[in-house]
Amino acid sequence: MKDRQPAPPLTGLALYQGLWGLWRRKAYSWALLRQDASAALIVTLLLIPQSLAYAALAGLPLQTGLYASILPAIAYALLGTSGMLAVGPVAITSLLTFSALSPLAQPGSDEYLTLAILLASLSGVCLLAMGFLRMGFLAHFLSHPVMSAFVSSAALIIVLGQLKGLSGIAVESGTLVALLCSLFRQLDQLHWLTFGLGVGFVLLLALSRWGLVRALVSLGFKTHQASLISKMAPVVLLVLACVLVATLRLDQQGVAIVGALPLNLPRLVLPDGDWGLVLTLIPAAMIISLIGFAESIAIARTFAARRRQQVNSNRELMGLGLANLASGLSGAFPVTGGLSRTAINQDAGAVTPLAGLLTGLGMALALVWITGWLYYLPIAFLAAVVFVAVMSLFDWRQLPYLWRYSRGDAWTWVVTFLGVLFIGLEIGLMLGIVMSLGVWLAKNSRPHVAVVGRVPGTEHFRNFQRYQVETHPNILTLRIDESLMFANAQEVEQRILAEVGRRPEVQHLILMGSGINHIDASGVEMLEQLNQLMQEQGICLHFSELKGPVLDRLQYSRLLDQMTGEVHLTQHQAMQALSTSA
Amino acid sequence: MKDRQPAPPLTGLALYQGLWGLWRRKAYSWALLRQDASAALIVTLLLIPQSLAYAALAGLPLQTGLYASILPAIAYALLGTSGMLAVGPVAITSLLTFSALSPLAQPGSDEYLTLAILLASLSGVCLLAMGFLRMGFLAHFLSHPVMSAFVSSAALIIVLGQLKGLSGIAVESGTLVALLCSLFRQLDQLHWLTFGLGVGFVLLLALSRWGLVRALVSLGFKTHQASLISKMAPVVLLVLACVLVATLRLDQQGVAIVGALPLNLPRLVLPDGDWGLVLTLIPAAMIISLIGFAESIAIARTFAARRRQQVNSNRELMGLGLANLASGLSGAFPVTGGLSRTAINQDAGAVTPLAGLLTGLGMALALVWITGWLYYLPIAFLAAVVFVAVMSLFDWRQLPYLWRYSRGDAWTWVVTFLGVLFIGLEIGLMLGIVMSLGVWLAKNSRPHVAVVGRVPGTEHFRNFQRYQVETHPNILTLRIDESLMFANAQEVEQRILAEVGRRPEVQHLILMGSGINHIDASGVEMLEQLNQLMQEQGICLHFSELKGPVLDRLQYSRLLDQMTGEVHLTQHQAMQALSTSA
Repeated sequence: MKDRQPAPPLTGLALYQGLWGLWRRKAYSWALLRQDASAALIVTLLLIPQSLAYAALAGLPLQTGLYASILPAIAYALLGTSGMLAVGPVAITSLLTFSALSPLAQPGSDEYLTLAILLASLSGVCLLAMGFLRMGFLAHFLSHPVMSAFVSSAALIIVLGQLKGLSGIAVESGTLVALLCSLFRQLDQLHWLTFGLGVGFVLLLALSRWGLVRALVSLGFKTHQASLISKMAPVVLLVLACVLVATLRLDQQGVAIVGALPLNLPRLVLPDGDWGLVLTLIPAAMIISLIGFAESIAIARTFAARRRQQVNSNRELMGLGLANLASGLSGAFPVTGGLSRTAINQDAGAVTPLAGLLTGLGMALALVWITGWLYYLPIAFLAAVVFVAVMSLFDWRQLPYLWRYSRGDAWTWVVTFLGVLFIGLEIGLMLGIVMSLGVWLAKNSRPHVAVVGRVPGTEHFRNFQRYQVETHPNILTLRIDESLMFANAQEVEQRILAEVGRRPEVQHLILMGSGINHIDASGVEMLEQLNQLMQEQGICLHFSELKGPVLDRLQYSRLLDQMTGEVHLTQHQAMQALSTSA
Repeated sequence: MKDRQPAPPLTGLALYQGLWGLWRRKAYSWALLRQDASAALIVTLLLIPQSLAYAALAGLPLQTGLYASILPAIAYALLGTSGMLAVGPVAITSLLTFSALSPLAQPGSDEYLTLAILLASLSGVCLLAMGFLRMGFLAHFLSHPVMSAFVSSAALIIVLGQLKGLSGIAVESGTLVALLCSLFRQLDQLHWLTFGLGVGFVLLLALSRWGLVRALVSLGFKTHQASLISKMAPVVLLVLACVLVATLRLDQQGVAIVGALPLNLPRLVLPDGDWGLVLTLIPAAMIISLIGFAESIAIARTFAARRRQQVNSNRELMGLGLANLASGLSGAFPVTGGLSRTAINQDAGAVTPLAGLLTGLGMALALVWITGWLYYLPIAFLAAVVFVAVMSLFDWRQLPYLWRYSRGDAWTWVVTFLGVLFIGLEIGLMLGIVMSLGVWLAKNSRPHVAVVGRVPGTEHFRNFQRYQVETHPNILTLRIDESLMFANAQEVEQRILAEVGRRPEVQHLILMGSGINHIDASGVEMLEQLNQLMQEQGICLHFSELKGPVLDRLQYSRLLDQMTGEVHLTQHQAMQALSTSA
């Protein structure tokens, strides 16, 4: 059998070491390098406004957004397993950073920056620790409804928060209520020129994102070209915005602009802070790590699966951890793998992780050469970039879908969404996690027990209420559709006793174990007691179709020795053996 | 088919109403009444020392133990469903009462008594509320290892706490460490006469409990007689102890005695306390309610199952709630159904709940007539009664058994045991509950996925690593031994992709759903993504043996519409349909 399993995923480090070899074997060539480099150029240009905007979202000086896109991207490429994932500042983690730090210091202040650097470093340590301890599975506890509700709710907060940049009103960020209150209180501060520019940018960016491709294709462009042009449209709009403001000197009329940014590369700094601060920030660092990792791994898995590759979640944790340490070292804030960055990376034609390295270098060059040209860039443009990017994260179709599929999951969504919106990001998320665990346990504790019989002409046994089946008067077969555990053992016992009680002529009780995946100690205790009760009533207790791992465990219990009946391999064999004797 | 299901369980109230009818139909007779009454007499005599001792354990005046045995027993009989359960003061709830109240007031003081009355009333309200809200299932979350460890640990604390009464040393109760420290610090206070008496009582009581029956039987008594004599031995010992102390005037030599108890019936009191106190006591009341209910329902179920009766847990909650309100009203402390009381009740030959009512009346009479005779009863005797009764609660065989059966359950036991012993009753219990949830989720998040094939000559499909089975080269069947949920969805997907990746010639992937009991929203999301990935690789995704309830839910998802393959009733039919085409 040919082995189709992919080779162990290349890490960036292995790749750089191997590139020379690949080059010599002509597996990597000038053509591929040109492809990676041109992709890096496009991505660099696109990421500049996004990076600046996310720094503003996190409450930090704009240039830190660029700092967070250089070393972290390179650091991730060294350890991470996904060749495509682009690491840098991301909307959700920036919002989480703001939410964690704004109660502790004034956004924009030096003290705030110090805290952000410490938070990025702590987040890096958390991720590395999770990676070493192989605790990547923790991210699984963010269920789909919880993540969807959290991201939607955070997106709503971010989008509404952009009203500050778009309108010139000094809106308070934080929970929804504080935001809306301060917005309405200060409605008279609305700066009409900024607002007009802002709305215009939002419309143009939204148009270039959702309408431009179709329009270009209908004008005769090829899909690929149209897509590339539409991707580059924000860069064109950025240049236009700068030119507009500079030529009309709109900044003198009160339109906020980016102004002079430091043109140097990040100076490397060590995180600074005492143990008290570290202890204060650790919960936030853990939440940022967990959310950042959950987002990042989902993206990495999706892109990897398309290429039939697999992602190692513990290696991913290390990669992201190193990226966050690098971000702290660069004097920036927490980063993670971003969906839009990664999509841009792939669309632009990146082939190997080398593209990621080149993007990092591109960012460094941009910082030195291009940033000076952004003096006249209106803040409203950055707000519009975030507004449009984040708007699409709001997943409004999820709730009605969940409502149809499962009420428990739908309520989890609602609780998380409202909790994040009205109480706070962290508490809302915790509420969601607790609720999803509760919903799952509630499901587990109401087990389904079916009386089954043979589907005529087969060796297959199904629920007698759903199918026309054959049963034997003296043999009762119950299929237990749940692992036996403490939360349902007593309930299962009651259900079994009730079914047996209803049938006085039963001599053999078969428990069909095809749905029993585990039996914990409380479950075994229950079965032992059931066996004894059945014995007192003169009924033999049997099992059928118990799974290997379950049977392995039961060897260590007293149950198999005490049992009055047998363990049968298949339900059909059990019926054949018993129907002759019964 | 004759209906063997028991009639709806008689409550005491219905029984009293029906007794006259039964009497007229000669279903209840003088003979049965005589049996109930003689049982009540025996039980009353046996419960007197126990009730006094548990009041001492709870840190309350001794007579409150008798108060707690009168009205609560009658109140429970009115609403509870179990005819046999004897409700009154119990070791574990008494210890929990002491642990909750001793940090708030001086045990034995009036203030302490007020708190105990309030606690009993609050516990009654909690139980009634749980009953009305049908939240009896909450007790299921006390897993078997947690309850076993909690009871063992509490038993150890109680037994060591009795050293106070047995030795005359003023031992501090509370956690194990405080207890042992104060014991060793004050070892010089040991009162040798008390200690001698105490050890003697313990030995005699232990002997009458574990050796007497056998000895009597070997002397020619019938088992039933021997058992009754051995049951009555504590009463005889009690009389002897009183006579001994009274005749030798040992109380003048420093042996602590019960002294004068008030000879009147309980005066009814209303609970007293402000909202602050209520809020302080509510957590303790909830824990006492939960533990008391879990203990009580387990006993009621065991005794009911022996008689083929069922117990309604919400009705039980109401019965216990009313009993605790009655206990508060009588000026006493929290009560619940006790194992030893119930066993005595049955052994003594009680037939109907009328025995419980008569026991309550007997206690009232004892309070007025007998208690005066207990003036010279040494405290060391009461301590010995508790010592011997509680010693047997320590379940030392549980841990090695759990260790063999399941490491996770064993660690839960250890954490609960040590937590209760060294941190505190409530925190230890909470640690245990959280740990048992964690262990269960950890199991759920490491799913077992088996490649299955047909067992030759049958229509049964099993794991190819455990059985000699037949497979088809182009069809891969995976049996997923776990419900699909947020904690394992990604893991399952990775396992499926890895198995598919290993077999390049696969055209059809069948997921055999016999072990899938639920699919939550995260699980459906994963299956949709899997279906898409398989489609991109030209592989058809099928299901077989999906259970009815799971399929019902999937109708509301997008999966069934998007699926490239079919849902087959049985795995055998799936193979037949596909092996012709593949």
